[in-house]
Amino acid sequence: MMLSFESDYIEGAHPTILENLEKTNYEQLSGYGADIYTERAIEKIRKACCRPDAEIFFLSGGTQTNQVVISSLLRSFEGVIAAETGHISVHEAGAIEYSGHKVIQLPGHDGKLDAEELRQFLEAFYQDGNREHMVFPGMVYLSYPTEFGTLYSKEELTAVYSLCKEYDIPLYLDGARLGYGLMSRKSDLTLPDIGDLCDVFYIGGTKVGALMGEAVVFTNRRAPAHFFTSVKQHGALLAKGRLLGIQFDTLFTDDLYFRISRHADEMAEEMKSLFLSKGYELYLDSPTNQQFVILDNDQMEKLGKAVKFSFWDKLDDSHSVVRFAASWATDRESLDALAQLL
Amino acid sequence: MMLSFESDYIEGAHPTILENLEKTNYEQLSGYGADIYTERAIEKIRKACCRPDAEIFFLSGGTQTNQVVISSLLRSFEGVIAAETGHISVHEAGAIEYSGHKVIQLPGHDGKLDAEELRQFLEAFYQDGNREHMVFPGMVYLSYPTEFGTLYSKEELTAVYSLCKEYDIPLYLDGARLGYGLMSRKSDLTLPDIGDLCDVFYIGGTKVGALMGEAVVFTNRRAPAHFFTSVKQHGALLAKGRLLGIQFDTLFTDDLYFRISRHADEMAEEMKSLFLSKGYELYLDSPTNQQFVILDNDQMEKLGKAVKFSFWDKLDDSHSVVRFAASWATDRESLDALAQLL
Amino acid sequence: MMLSFESDYIEGAHPTILENLEKTNYEQLSGYGADIYTERAIEKIRKACCRPDAEIFFLSGGTQTNQVVISSLLRSFEGVIAAETGHISVHEAGAIEYSGHKVIQLPGHDGKLDAEELRQFLEAFYQDGNREHMVFPGMVYLSYPTEFGTLYSKEELTAVYSLCKEYDIPLYLDGARLGYGLMSRKSDLTLPDIGDLCDVFYIGGTKVGALMGEAVVFTNRRAPAHFFTSVKQHGALLAKGRLLGIQFDTLFTDDLYFRISRHADEMAEEMKSLFLSKGYELYLDSPTNQQFVILDNDQMEKLGKAVKFSFWDKLDDSHSVVRFAASWATDRESLDALAQLL
Amino acid sequence: MMLSFESDYIEGAHPTILENLEKTNYEQLSGYGADIYTERAIEKIRKACCRPDAEIFFLSGGTQTNQVVISSLLRSFEGVIAAETGHISVHEAGAIEYSGHKVIQLPGHDGKLDAEELRQFLEAFYQDGNREHMVFPGMVYLSYPTEFGTLYSKEELTAVYSLCKEYDIPLYLDGARLGYGLMSRKSDLTLPDIGDLCDVFYIGGTKVGALMGEAVVFTNRRAPAHFFTSVKQHGALLAKGRLLGIQFDTLFTDDLYFRISRHADEMAEEMKSLFLSKGYELYLDSPTNQQFVILDNDQMEKLGKAVKFSFWDKLDDSHSVVRFAASWATDRESLDALAQLL
Repeated sequence: MMLSFESDYIEGAHPTILENLEKTNYEQLSGYGADIYTERAIEKIRKACCRPDAEIFFLSGGTQTNQVVISSLLRSFEGVIAAETGHISVHEAGAIEYSGHKVIQLPGHDGKLDAEELRQFLEAFYQDGNREHMVFPGMVYLSYPTEFGTLYSKEELTAVYSLCKEYDIPLYLDGARLGYGLMSRKSDLTLPDIGDLCDVFYIGGTKVGALMGEAVVFTNRRAPAHFFTSVKQHGALLAKGRLLGIQFDTLFTDDLYFRISRHADEMAEEMKSLFLSKGYELYLDSPTNQQFVILDNDQMEKLGKAVKFSFWDKLDDSHSVVRFAASWATDRESLDALAQLL
Repeated sequence: MMLSFESDYIEGAHPTILENLEKTNYEQLSGYGADIYTERAIEKIRKACCRPDAEIFFLSGGTQTNQVVISSLLRSFEGVIAAETGHISVHEAGAIEYSGHKVIQLPGHDGKLDAEELRQFLEAFYQDGNREHMVFPGMVYLSYPTEFGTLYSKEELTAVYSLCKEYDIPLYLDGARLGYGLMSRKSDLTLPDIGDLCDVFYIGGTKVGALMGEAVVFTNRRAPAHFFTSVKQHGALLAKGRLLGIQFDTLFTDDLYFRISRHADEMAEEMKSLFLSKGYELYLDSPTNQQFVILDNDQMEKLGKAVKFSFWDKLDDSHSVVRFAASWATDRESLDALAQLL
Repeated sequence: MMLSFESDYIEGAHPTILENLEKTNYEQLSGYGADIYTERAIEKIRKACCRPDAEIFFLSGGTQTNQVVISSLLRSFEGVIAAETGHISVHEAGAIEYSGHKVIQLPGHDGKLDAEELRQFLEAFYQDGNREHMVFPGMVYLSYPTEFGTLYSKEELTAVYSLCKEYDIPLYLDGARLGYGLMSRKSDLTLPDIGDLCDVFYIGGTKVGALMGEAVVFTNRRAPAHFFTSVKQHGALLAKGRLLGIQFDTLFTDDLYFRISRHADEMAEEMKSLFLSKGYELYLDSPTNQQFVILDNDQMEKLGKAVKFSFWDKLDDSHSVVRFAASWATDRESLDALAQLL
Repeated sequence: MMLSFESDYIEGAHPTILENLEKTNYEQLSGYGADIYTERAIEKIRKACCRPDAEIFFLSGGTQTNQVVISSLLRSFEGVIAAETGHISVHEAGAIEYSGHKVIQLPGHDGKLDAEELRQFLEAFYQDGNREHMVFPGMVYLSYPTEFGTLYSKEELTAVYSLCKEYDIPLYLDGARLGYGLMSRKSDLTLPDIGDLCDVFYIGGTKVGALMGEAVVFTNRRAPAHFFTSVKQHGALLAKGRLLGIQFDTLFTDDLYFRISRHADEMAEEMKSLFLSKGYELYLDSPTNQQFVILDNDQMEKLGKAVKFSFWDKLDDSHSVVRFAASWATDRESLDALAQLL
């Protein structure tokens, strides 16, 4: 089998998760999240966030989570602001629009929204005499880390959140890879900070060691009325809710979530050094588990025969950007093998 | 822990599924269903259906599957016909209407549509001078077994399907518990028959031994264009598609799906005999894994202290209908324990 | 041209409306309802309702009004309760479902909801342990007069509204033919009563003398935030809002709306007497401008050659129900002509 | 009353329309477009387009038309490409997204799409390995004239349409002000050309002499199945369809539509000369009935006290763009009055 750094979801689950699924397999537990493991997972996440009153729900995937959360929080005449490179802007097949809402796209700066540009947009909107004919900005969406692996600093996130509070619209943080962001050596944010600096976010499981699953965390009592029913209405409610509860109970026991995130970040840093030391150019300086490398057509072809990675974007006729990702399962052996190939 | 017959999704997965998840856990597989196990599962299901050209997709849950399939097949001015007791009519929190389509409700007879009533409805619709102001019937939905555990005979299903062909609308069969239907001693249908007698159906995994997962099978080349993208748009695409592929590969190896279904049906038959022998009255004669029993208020209270079951409906002031379900995990010991309680 | 009682929208507008359109035609007025005539119409309707604080908006047609009002007031997980014969249940081509919401159908009694059945439904819903998997009843819809021309008494409407208040859901009254209801000799309700006994209603113009147009009246400060924008979002905002403003300004000047409604009701009463005196059977006893008559196939054919009416429903193989409607334009001559035909 | 050039919908209807409404007012005509005037209007428009087989429908307003046409033609996984300044991108309150579809925004060049940029976008989309995770481009939308009053040349429109045919997606032309475009001295297109160079377009009535109303013209048998029902489902069907039929019958009798369009264009040209002769700067060179003028803050304030116009956009701290529009009702007197003010 060919060596692969294609993504952070090419392996199964962290082995402790499988162990726990097996250990609890014969227990008879009520469905739809009314089980003890889901309860425990909620308590542990509340503790990890230092938010005893957080309202927490478990869903299956990132696009699903974005669709359910965003459409449940927006009023019908509102849209959601996002960077033009944001996942909801580009790679969710129009899931937000399918739910009836516009994604209002602002420029992305290595994947990030700029608070100053956001302020200008909001000011201009509320000064526009035609605004009643336009989609109202009803929420701000950002991802941490971004789709490019980059991070908002605490100051940057605070600036965005202050604006949201000023305009009384919720800030929603897409944490599909939250662990890799928080555990980055470049991050100055903690999980409790995240809870303080937005109104709702999700803790990604699928890409951080789970088989699937995302934990949605509403702070400030922002959970919409009957969110459970909205989840069901979107076809997003699992009958065997235990599957999500057990996984997150595991991930938030003994800091597993953070330990495997840090491991992947470290592996990615070594990968980055490797590329640099071999004379490769990086597309941007990602401090998290995804590394974006520039390859010329020749390198692409040769390397592509020996190792899997993701094509990201064409840079020009003879160069492309490709992505190498690390995960909980990435080990020194695979890095050594990569080193040899380079 | 209290004995429970609450539903067929109170345990985890059949142990062979967990074994296979573990065995393959470290394999690096591409995401979104582009893995070898998904491919194998598709091939095995095609074979089991005797439909080499069936188009097969894997989704996570029943409501999700109904929403994605129905909304992808209907045109915007069409609705779906269903029994008034059908799952989509009652217990999916309006997931079909959320996607923009009316559920056109016809009477249910122990959960079943009656072909003659369906014919009358369709005839009346096409004779109605105001039909262009009405929702067009664009699909027929039925469940096999029904929400009451009952079964269509081959003749009954054929009659419904003939009508669908006559009116050129697809027939969609909700097989959330398909195995329990096919393996019932009262069934005169096989899986290939199902493939012959509708245009799309799903093979339920969640309630038949999987952690989660449903296999959608389109016959007659009925799969909508770019169905993959529609799945994504509904937030229904799993990144680690392997999770679905491995489960269905397991269920369709060595007839596991059918063996565990038959086992549950047999357990349910014993349960039924048990209730009858103890003088309990059945609400209806279900030939599958769910049994519906009438309890008076006293019995409800006493029994409820020792064993878990589902409340189904109030019959009158002093009687209720409750449901006892069997699954792959139901064993003789639990039946013996139930016998003692009764 | 053949004599016609086909509907109450077969003629143009009351001549005073055309006069006023002409009189004001060259005035330069801002668009989208920001004109003096719209303002005046709002004030006059407020006065007629004895509701100085009513929030009033003008829309173009009945289905549009129902869709915009209902979808703007419901939360995403809610549906609207209506009689199974209600306009939104049958003859709006699924406009409510298109906006994402289920129409929860209760039995109709000559078109009317029964308060006791409504109470039972609501009680059962809130006692149902599975209600979080179901569409929440978020509004009650009724029409006055109903689609069968029948009327709720003050007592009946009060009973329904009390329930709505008890369950804290708005009551919405579809007044496509409101004038004909209020001016009926059988009505014990006034326009201010209507304002007191629901949360939102509309005063139908299209079928009561206007070219088109309906006036939506929100009481109790129930108008949704940014309703103007929702109207636009539904494609329901007219650029030349004056067209609606001038028509309603006219209809609510010198009681024109009520006078032409009473006239039509009187014509319909004479029509009813005519049918009865000629030995025809009525399908039901409608006290408003629409009369429903039973014809045998022979009568249908013969009469149909000399006068236009609407086919309503097939009663049995040899009889049908047909509708004769009166409007502002119905005059004694046409009744005399009808008398001769009968 | 203050002189106004605020928009082309500040007056009522061309007087011939009112005359015809009056003349036909007492005729009894079937509803929903089944009347002789609608039939005649359809025939006359077919003739004017040299398209005897065109399928034609009448709707009430521009946003409504865009929503109904676009959502009826797109499949659920598709979006519509438009200039970022297109009406559907900005000023329709998210009506397209409300119907479930993304507006895919490309750069606007004085309001126009560039065929080369469109080609690049389409090529890139079909080369993107992730395209199945993205919204498919399912239609191209453009407006003629654009929101800035500018025009596509025949060559430019042909280039866009060739691309659409190459990619097998319909081209939809928003003709809210179609007459002003076709009658411009700068236009090299005729109405039959429009019919040849797109798959569906609408002939705007609201802004070109009608009270309200737009005529949708499908060529190439592109009308969606049961479009009438889709219109109803969107709440866009008028009961008194005669109101639309009579207006368009009038507009397409004796070339009225074209004559009043040319008149407005001529008035606008004089207005333009006036502004230039007085030393004002134009924001762009519009060849149609809307003129975009740059005013400094002082001019804005002074002029605003004596004449109404529309604020368009802020240029910088001390300058704004404003719009002056001409219509069928603009006469020499008002231009003289404007001249004096300038």
